[in-house]
Amino acid sequence: MANSASGDSVVDRVVRLIEAFPEGVPSLQLSELAHRAGLPLSSTHRLVRQLSEHGLLDLGAGGTVRLGLRLWELVNRNSPTLALRQAAMPFMEDIQQVLNQNVNLAVLDGWEALFVERLSRRGSVANRAQIAGRMPVHISSAGLALMSHQSRELQAEYLEQFADPFGKVTADVVRHYLAEASQQGYAQLAGVVDPDTWGIAVPVMNGKRRTVAALGVVVPLAEMRLQALVPALQTAARGIGRQLAD
Amino acid sequence: MANSASGDSVVDRVVRLIEAFPEGVPSLQLSELAHRAGLPLSSTHRLVRQLSEHGLLDLGAGGTVRLGLRLWELVNRNSPTLALRQAAMPFMEDIQQVLNQNVNLAVLDGWEALFVERLSRRGSVANRAQIAGRMPVHISSAGLALMSHQSRELQAEYLEQFADPFGKVTADVVRHYLAEASQQGYAQLAGVVDPDTWGIAVPVMNGKRRTVAALGVVVPLAEMRLQALVPALQTAARGIGRQLAD
Repeated sequence: MANSASGDSVVDRVVRLIEAFPEGVPSLQLSELAHRAGLPLSSTHRLVRQLSEHGLLDLGAGGTVRLGLRLWELVNRNSPTLALRQAAMPFMEDIQQVLNQNVNLAVLDGWEALFVERLSRRGSVANRAQIAGRMPVHISSAGLALMSHQSRELQAEYLEQFADPFGKVTADVVRHYLAEASQQGYAQLAGVVDPDTWGIAVPVMNGKRRTVAALGVVVPLAEMRLQALVPALQTAARGIGRQLAD
Repeated sequence: MANSASGDSVVDRVVRLIEAFPEGVPSLQLSELAHRAGLPLSSTHRLVRQLSEHGLLDLGAGGTVRLGLRLWELVNRNSPTLALRQAAMPFMEDIQQVLNQNVNLAVLDGWEALFVERLSRRGSVANRAQIAGRMPVHISSAGLALMSHQSRELQAEYLEQFADPFGKVTADVVRHYLAEASQQGYAQLAGVVDPDTWGIAVPVMNGKRRTVAALGVVVPLAEMRLQALVPALQTAARGIGRQLAD
């Protein structure tokens, strides 16, 4: 494997280029990309050109770089989340139809919930095109639903390293949230983005009773009816789980 | 750039690994992946391990390789199709609500229509999770709508190289389709997957009057009402176009 003067491999540099795009910024000038990736302009240019030939990046006339359409296609046609989303989608549509709320599906990745699918309530144009968002476990009902159903070891490891960057929440508070979610079989939490909304999420277990996802809704406070929401979510989660062998 | 004995660069080999997954096959055994990518098992293993460390691939316990969740996230949060899909989604939902038909959005990539978004008619569970499909221009209304509004030069180049693998359609027939679509402002074609359905698609032009996408519906033959469908699609396409500067 070829290493540059700084000792990183070609693979490392390719990854740094792909990772350099900030969330929601689909294009960067070549020089800005080099700067953000921490790579010299010359080798950035060379790598971008190589990756563009394969459609992994797209180098435009004015030196504008985007992720390539071919890369988007390859990743989405063989998405690691495809089986889960295919199993979940009909049930998510049911929830959307019956409850008319925003529905989401998340997986645990590190100490965060990664949202892999999202349906908006009818009439809202909240944007479904934007998926792949993340939320720290302790501020999302999906994150709490996921973490509360992991092994004791993983939960302990999570709590051990836990530190709220805003210093508001302690590990003990999160431990309490997790215990509650584990006991109740669902997690609920006031909205972070909008404090007048609540998130409620339940774990989705596969055929081996392993929690592989969380199914949740985001509900305006005025429409918060746990008695109706939780059984609907739990029923849908069981339906999804039946489709998932492992 | 390091070249292997066979002369291909590390970038080439990374691309070959990502491209090696056949459509809809999200996981491969390491040996199968090496075979499909045309790479020695040892270097495949080394590369896969490196890419796994960054989450671009995911190497499972049993030697199973998938595309990585991190790669999926990076590509989808900065999707090259994001601006187009965000502009199109509310209009696609309108079409879905008003006409209750399957709605799709495609871009031209090479000589194919690449479907970047899709909404199913209410009540159908045709799967929205599966996007990133492709259809040759001459057998999809989206492809014809896209190609019929490209420059004369590009159309000539397309027709020059045109060859139907099944020997059914000649370049002259396709030329006729394109002329018709160009004149009418929409393309229509009997369904390929299901011959009892029709596809109708219209071009989506950006602020510079360049055709950047096709908006289409797939309609059961019994519900085919061009007089209603075409104006609705054209109105929506203009709405999408207004959001697209370039």
